[in-house]
This record gives sequence, C-alpha cells and structure tokens, in this order.
Amino acid sequence: MDLLSIDSLNDAQIGTILDRADFHLAANRSGGSSNALAGKLVFNLFYENSTRTLMSFSTAAHRLGGSVVTLPVEQSSVKKGETLEDTARTLNAMRPDVVVIRHRENGAPQRVAEIMDSPVINAGDGTDEHPTQALLDAATMRSRFGSFEGLTVAICGDIRHSRVAHSNAMLLPRLGAKVRLGGPPMLMPDDLLAPHSVDEAIEGADVVMMLRVQRERLAEDLGDAPGEYLARYGLTAERLAKAKPNALVMHPGPMNRGVEIDGAIADDPHRSLITLQVEYGVAVRMACLELVLA
Amino acid sequence: MDLLSIDSLNDAQIGTILDRADFHLAANRSGGSSNALAGKLVFNLFYENSTRTLMSFSTAAHRLGGSVVTLPVEQSSVKKGETLEDTARTLNAMRPDVVVIRHRENGAPQRVAEIMDSPVINAGDGTDEHPTQALLDAATMRSRFGSFEGLTVAICGDIRHSRVAHSNAMLLPRLGAKVRLGGPPMLMPDDLLAPHSVDEAIEGADVVMMLRVQRERLAEDLGDAPGEYLARYGLTAERLAKAKPNALVMHPGPMNRGVEIDGAIADDPHRSLITLQVEYGVAVRMACLELVLA
Amino acid sequence: MDLLSIDSLNDAQIGTILDRADFHLAANRSGGSSNALAGKLVFNLFYENSTRTLMSFSTAAHRLGGSVVTLPVEQSSVKKGETLEDTARTLNAMRPDVVVIRHRENGAPQRVAEIMDSPVINAGDGTDEHPTQALLDAATMRSRFGSFEGLTVAICGDIRHSRVAHSNAMLLPRLGAKVRLGGPPMLMPDDLLAPHSVDEAIEGADVVMMLRVQRERLAEDLGDAPGEYLARYGLTAERLAKAKPNALVMHPGPMNRGVEIDGAIADDPHRSLITLQVEYGVAVRMACLELVLA
Repeated sequence: MDLLSIDSLNDAQIGTILDRADFHLAANRSGGSSNALAGKLVFNLFYENSTRTLMSFSTAAHRLGGSVVTLPVEQSSVKKGETLEDTARTLNAMRPDVVVIRHRENGAPQRVAEIMDSPVINAGDGTDEHPTQALLDAATMRSRFGSFEGLTVAICGDIRHSRVAHSNAMLLPRLGAKVRLGGPPMLMPDDLLAPHSVDEAIEGADVVMMLRVQRERLAEDLGDAPGEYLARYGLTAERLAKAKPNALVMHPGPMNRGVEIDGAIADDPHRSLITLQVEYGVAVRMACLELVLA
Repeated sequence: MDLLSIDSLNDAQIGTILDRADFHLAANRSGGSSNALAGKLVFNLFYENSTRTLMSFSTAAHRLGGSVVTLPVEQSSVKKGETLEDTARTLNAMRPDVVVIRHRENGAPQRVAEIMDSPVINAGDGTDEHPTQALLDAATMRSRFGSFEGLTVAICGDIRHSRVAHSNAMLLPRLGAKVRLGGPPMLMPDDLLAPHSVDEAIEGADVVMMLRVQRERLAEDLGDAPGEYLARYGLTAERLAKAKPNALVMHPGPMNRGVEIDGAIADDPHRSLITLQVEYGVAVRMACLELVLA
Repeated sequence: MDLLSIDSLNDAQIGTILDRADFHLAANRSGGSSNALAGKLVFNLFYENSTRTLMSFSTAAHRLGGSVVTLPVEQSSVKKGETLEDTARTLNAMRPDVVVIRHRENGAPQRVAEIMDSPVINAGDGTDEHPTQALLDAATMRSRFGSFEGLTVAICGDIRHSRVAHSNAMLLPRLGAKVRLGGPPMLMPDDLLAPHSVDEAIEGADVVMMLRVQRERLAEDLGDAPGEYLARYGLTAERLAKAKPNALVMHPGPMNRGVEIDGAIADDPHRSLITLQVEYGVAVRMACLELVLA
C-alpha cells in the first residue's frame, strides 16, 4: 500500500500508526532495536531541501534494520530533462522495497506511486499534503492529552501554502479534535469557509500550532520587518495567554525565532512540544514504514 | 582485479557476468537476498552527475549485503585543487574493498586503479568507456534473443561522444552480434571506417539502440529544434519500420522524449527494453562486484 | 563523553586511543571486522567541505558495524535560517548514538554538545581545534619512532588559521614531544611567544609537518605565485636537508603540490608519512567512536 495522503488511510490504519509510534518511541528511548526492515532497501527521493524529514526517515529506516539509498537530487537526471515518470520507471526497475518522496509539485508522489510496484510514502508535496507530519503531530498531542475528544487545535500562519496545515486539517477532525485555521488575510486560502485571524484561532485553544513563514513572503506579501510579523501574527506571550491555561505549543520546524514564534515560548519546557514532535517523527515514520510493508 | 574496459575482461569473465546477472535478476524478482558483500565497503566516486548509475551501483551493493560510502563530489577536495592521484592515494589508505568511479576525463579510472590496492570498476569515463552499461545491454538482449548469433544491433545518435556506443561496439561483436553505428555526420567519429546514416544503420536490424543527445549539441552543432532532430535522426515509427519486424528498442537513459526517440516507442511494452535494461543494470553490477572481489 | 578538544581528554584516554588505533590499523590490514557499533547510528554533520575527514569517519563507523546518516548541508535548514542550537535540538530528538560535527565557526561543536544527549566528536571547528587529526598524527609518529621522548616536530605554514597546528600544539607536548611552529610572518598568530621562520622551525627537527596554504591567501596576503611560496616558505629538498637526517614528513592534506610542499618529497616512500596518516585516520576514528560510546 501507499501512504500518499491522510485520506488514503482508514481509521484502523491511523490507529495502528499512532499505537506503533508509541511503542517505537518507548523502544527508541530504551535503546531497543528492530529488524522489521532487515534486507529491505528504502529509496529517499528528496526533490526539495530538507534536513529534518530526510534525516528522520533515514533514522527510522536504520532503526528498523533497513538500508537507505538517497537520490542526490542536485546530481540527478532532473537536470537532464528526464520526466518524473521516466525517473520513476527507472527507479522502479531497480526494485526498491519502499520509496519516500518529497517534491515541490502537488501530486508528484501520486504520479510516482502509479508507476512504482513498491509502496510509496509522501514526505511532502508542494502545498498539498505532508501526511507523516500530521500523524506525528497527532501522536504528539495524544501522548499529552490521552485523547482528541474536546480538543481545540489552532493552526496559525501561512495556511495558504502549508501542506502541514492541510494534512492536519484532514486528520485531526477525524480523530475528534476541532481545528481552527488562522493567519494573515493574504496567507489564508481563498476557499476557506471560516477564516480566522490568529487571535480568533488561538482563543480558548488547547494546542497552538504555529507554521513557518517563508522569509521571502515577509518581503513580498507582508512588507514587514520580522519583529512586526511577530507582533501582528506571531505567537507572543500575550497572544498565548488567550488560549486555555497551560495550552501547549507546536511547530513543525524549522523555526524562525522572533518571527512566527517568540523564542522563549519555543523553549518553555512546560508548554512547548516542539522537540517531542521531532522524536515522534522518527517513531511515526518507523510505524509508517512497517505499515506500508506489511 | 579491476573492471576498467571491455577489453580488460576475458570471454570466460564476460560469460560469468552474464550468467550471474540472470541469476541475480531472478533472485531480485523473488525477493532473495545475498551476503556476498557482507562486511565489505564500496566507495562510490562519482565526479559527474548521475542518477541511475549511482543508484544502480548502490542498490547492487546493498542487495549483496555490503555497505556504501558515496564521495560527495560537490564537497570534495577536487575543488581544493588536489590531484586525482592524490585523492586516490588518500582513499586507498582508507582501505575500501571496492571503488566505483565515474569521471569526466577519459582514462581517469585507469589512473585511479594504478594506485588503488582494491578492485576498481569504471562506471563511465568521459567519451571512452562504460563497460557495465555494455554488459547490461548484452544481458538484456540475451534474455530476449537467447544468443547473439546473427543479431544486428544498430546504435544510433551521438556516436562521437558516446562511451555507451564505444563499449558496446567492443563487446557485442565478441559475443557474435554485428554492430552498425549511425548518426548525424557531425556526431560520428572521424576515424570510423564505415559510418552509416541513422536510416542505413536501422535497415533490417534486430535491435535499435538510441543514444541520448545532449541538448547543448542541438544548439551548437545541429541548429535544430528538438522536433527537427527527431524527424531527421530520431527513432520514429516510420524509421523503426525499416528494422526487422518486431525489432526491439533500447536506450541507456535518461531519454529526451521527442528528440532522439518518439515517446510512444519508448513506452511500447512489446518493443521497448528500456526498463528491462535498468533492471539488468542492478543484476549486472551485482555480478561485477562479485567478480572483482572473487 | 564528548571528544571536543585535546584538553577534554585525559592522559589515559589519549593512551587508549593510540593503543586501540594500532590494534584497528592491524585489523583493517588483515581484513578483520568488528561489531562494536552494531545497531548504532552515527550522524555526520559536516557544515564545511570535506572529503577525507567525512569519508574517514564514515569508513570508521562502517568498519565497526555501525550505520551512518550524513546531513546534506547543502540541503539543510541552515539555509532556512534555523539556529545551530535549534538544529541540534532537532537532531537530538532523533536520538542518534554519536554525532560527528565539522563547522566553520569556532566553538560550534561545544554548542551542539551542550544540547545533545549523545556523545559529540569535533571533526574540526573553524580555526580552533581538530582533535582527531592531532591524534592520528600522534599515532602515525609513534608507529615510526616508538615514543615521543626527545622528538622535535616542526609544524610549518599557515599557523594562524590552522586548527591542525593548534590541536597538535596541545597534544604533542603532553606526550613528550617538542613542537616548533614556523611560517610566513603574516600567517603566524599574534599571541605566539616564540614564532619561528620556516627555516628555524625545521632546523634539526625529527618530523616536518607542512600545512595546507589556502590559495586565496596566496593572492591576498602573500602576493606570490605558487612557486614563490614554495621557494620562500615551502618544503623543498634544500629546506628538508636542515632537519635531522632521515627526518620524516607529514601533511594533513589535501596538498598543494608545488606550493607548500615539493611533490617529490610528498612521494618519497622513505620520508613521507602522508598516506600512513590517512590510514591511521580511520583507525584513530574507530578508536574515538569506541571511546565515546564506552
């Protein structure tokens, strides 16, 4: 099976991923090891810059005893004018056991998956989806709240361009949480029925998930110095005070401190789940690799 | 032993590679595994862009249970002015078990092999040789025709700059096939005794192998729009009809669809061996790694 | 434990590294293997170009049965404005077993080590330290001289910017050797008590270690053609004749032949230890990985 979008997963599969992620997180902490991917070969095809997602998938594969070959995109045939479909046919003929793909274009993982015989995992495509990020976000929340019932999650920032927001907005309501999307008006999708301001989204929320704002957009769309963005749309102590008492803070990284989030909030050990998200990232990807290979 | 050129292999070694490639292809299809390279370390030194050859060698090494370290050429001492010989001495002192090298300069693998204590495999040097490509092409043909006796293979396109054509022109006649080289006059080698036009080469052929044309050359030498190259020198249905009925089509990739080959021909499941070539690529490189380590 | 600087090691640890390096060098030569790092994951974070150090650490980890994930710095979040501390927090949450870091900034490995739960090894930071290089230099010398007592080591060249010189100047005196630092006046540190000319440093030395001179500095500071640098400050046969008879020659690489060292000296099998240094590089890094994980 492929893991291309949140909708491609049924509820039982989502439950399995979250449960196995808890198992792997605990095993990783206690130095346990697994051979679920022994003799298996994972191809990492990252057509877009990445540190954490690429390292996270590579770590997950190694922790399961698998081998990894990473396509050096800078060296790749992309530059030689080969189509994505021809690259997929070529890689498919090498018979990898799993393909993990990140791509700038929406739908690229689907196009690759239609060709590959092996399972394909979407590690982020354009402004479309980033399903393993939403799954790790859900696993992180569940570890702190126990369940999603009654939870209100504010996702704030550049909603328009965010595959993280998109995947979370599909996953969290299925699990029982309420999602509120907020951001600067010019960074909200045109088709959103009920757009919120950042302040409205945060009001009374249990979780505040801030999104990275591209520095290019600050110049282009917002005409703001970084500090102005923080004051108007970012997560400051004042703004966080509008959420529930002890509301928790998330960010998919990499963070722009002092832009979308005040550094002191990111570092607050009682409020910030940011490093726990990264830790669940490896655990969730281990669970996803197991699932698609099952 | 090194595998630097077709001439460096005797007939028995070529036979062993082709036979073992058939074995590995079948084993890879059935999910078999090998430990022939367990505990062995392969250095991939790719001084030239590559997707398929680099991934193919990496996959082959992993399928044999070996480990791979790939030199990041963009980060390498090449930029610091170190000579190739000094780099080879340095890498040799690290005692890899096998070195796979691709380089822009003709003869670079030989220069490296003179220094290395470990076996060296040429993964393509300049316009000189690409022996594992010719071996995978031969294995692919043999899998469809059973033998090379009486086969006529047309190799068409930029013969002048093609290490693929060069290695095939040395290998296939030794195996019993007849090779005809055809291309635009300005892309034929000066010293070729009997140059053909593309149409002459294809006439009555059993196999038509089209070569990639560098887009730069279209502008420089041929003054043609891509569609004009296809019409004058590329593999169209009309041109393929001049070959034997059911003649098969090959291409080392990456392809320029609509330039040297009509996309519909490349995709024809009855005529095109292009993805089978890639699959044999892994199998042949597994056989080559075994041979040089034997 | 971390291995961040020479001063972070006590004498017993230094002795253990040198002894284990001799063991690993012999084992590597005889094709022995180890599983000391089986199931362990090494993160290579190279924020600065490197061939030999990166390949050396990767080789060392593989020879010990470990797995390696190399951060693709060109693709990294560095470009996205993430702080080094945030990158370290992210990577720490992935729970690597060891982190190896090279960075342009002095002190970067210390900053990372304060955050990481795993051991951190400094693979070179700015103009500060390169402790594993000094350890491999010491192991190489000891293998030829048996001990450091009474040895005089001349380190010559761009002392001002050299982390290799810095780490050796801290390590070798602790082991009993005398170090003399020599170079062009504008490439000597301002705070050095007794700067030498290159000729003074070499006079009567047992070992002459030449440092790489950055080609940029030739233009900037020295206004010299390469041959002029060699004549004035490089290791020529005439200059080497001022050292002890049979004095040995070292260089951390990559070399600029004809600039800081005459190529014939570098290649002299009786005098040059340059490739032995590289071989000890793998062995010393195996010993360091073992030590920090012990």
